Amino acid sequence: MKEMEDRILTQGEVLPGHILKVGNFLNQQIDSAFLSRIGEEIASLFAESGVTKVMTIESSGIAIAASVGMAMNVPIIFAKKHKSSNVDGKVLSTTIHSYTHGNDYTAVVGADYLLPGERVLLVDDFLANGNALEGLIRMVEQVGATVVGAACAIEKGFQHGGDKLREKGYRIESLAIVDAMDDDGTISFRR
Amino acid sequence: MKEMEDRILTQGEVLPGHILKVGNFLNQQIDSAFLSRIGEEIASLFAESGVTKVMTIESSGIAIAASVGMAMNVPIIFAKKHKSSNVDGKVLSTTIHSYTHGNDYTAVVGADYLLPGERVLLVDDFLANGNALEGLIRMVEQVGATVVGAACAIEKGFQHGGDKLREKGYRIESLAIVDAMDDDGTISFRR
Repeated sequence: MKEMEDRILTQGEVLPGHILKVGNFLNQQIDSAFLSRIGEEIASLFAESGVTKVMTIESSGIAIAASVGMAMNVPIIFAKKHKSSNVDGKVLSTTIHSYTHGNDYTAVVGADYLLPGERVLLVDDFLANGNALEGLIRMVEQVGATVVGAACAIEKGFQHGGDKLREKGYRIESLAIVDAMDDDGTISFRR
Repeated sequence: MKEMEDRILTQGEVLPGHILKVGNFLNQQIDSAFLSRIGEEIASLFAESGVTKVMTIESSGIAIAASVGMAMNVPIIFAKKHKSSNVDGKVLSTTIHSYTHGNDYTAVVGADYLLPGERVLLVDDFLANGNALEGLIRMVEQVGATVVGAACAIEKGFQHGGDKLREKGYRIESLAIVDAMDDDGTISFRR
């Protein structure tokens, strides 16, 4: 998506430690017309996939997942993050390691919201090492539902999570893939 | 909004401790057409208010805020919750007490995203004691922006946060106001 690349170049900021700051247009503040276009773009990429549900994990992918769900006219489910692995009730859960925070958390979704046979599109804002996405895939597959693919706004190609999942056969669509970020702020996109 | 009341009655669940569980239609799973209608309903309530920005706090109000922002065609900003009060960079912050979790957290938004003179509509899924909303109001007003009002999907009228803010002169619109929940599951709405 050319607009995503353009905004990364003009409004993004490269910080030390391979951090790409996009708070002013993607995950702290978002232009609502741009958010609509993101939803429509992802919906069109997966238009032929028979998606029955859009799924994300709190919290920075929620707005994008909401937009995709509205564009596809399917329900949206939000996995929650818990610090402990003690989770009440009838739930699906999996442990995910956070590379950013250096700890583990438990992702949880009510078992009633994800049923065998569903065709689930996973959505997130960032795809880096792929840990969060792999966790969502485990949750979907453990109930006998199908992951039709994953759509991310921005993939950090140099952290290889997306390619690892593609090698396993998953369809991963990212609206922009950053293959390199230099300390001087130069950003290279995958072609 | 009649549909919100109907869904609370048919799909909501009253749990001990005055908890209203609406995970199957509002904050863990959401019907995307319903989410669109919520956005349009709130947008029409505040259509004459000159709103320049929609603001919420992570994470359960994000989908609703995204839908409202898209219906009003204004940017959406998401305050983040931090455990510590040590927050880097140029930010606006305020301390909020969580009644649910019995602790304090710091709500933070980048100072660049909220400017003097803006007219801000606050959005959340639940309004109970009003602590979160009061925190967002402090953040908006500390920069010299105006709170045009707040819109919530469900207000727990018996916890009085909404009425306290109305008495202070704020316009608070809730799509359903639950004035009583009995242990036998009976729910009474404000008329």
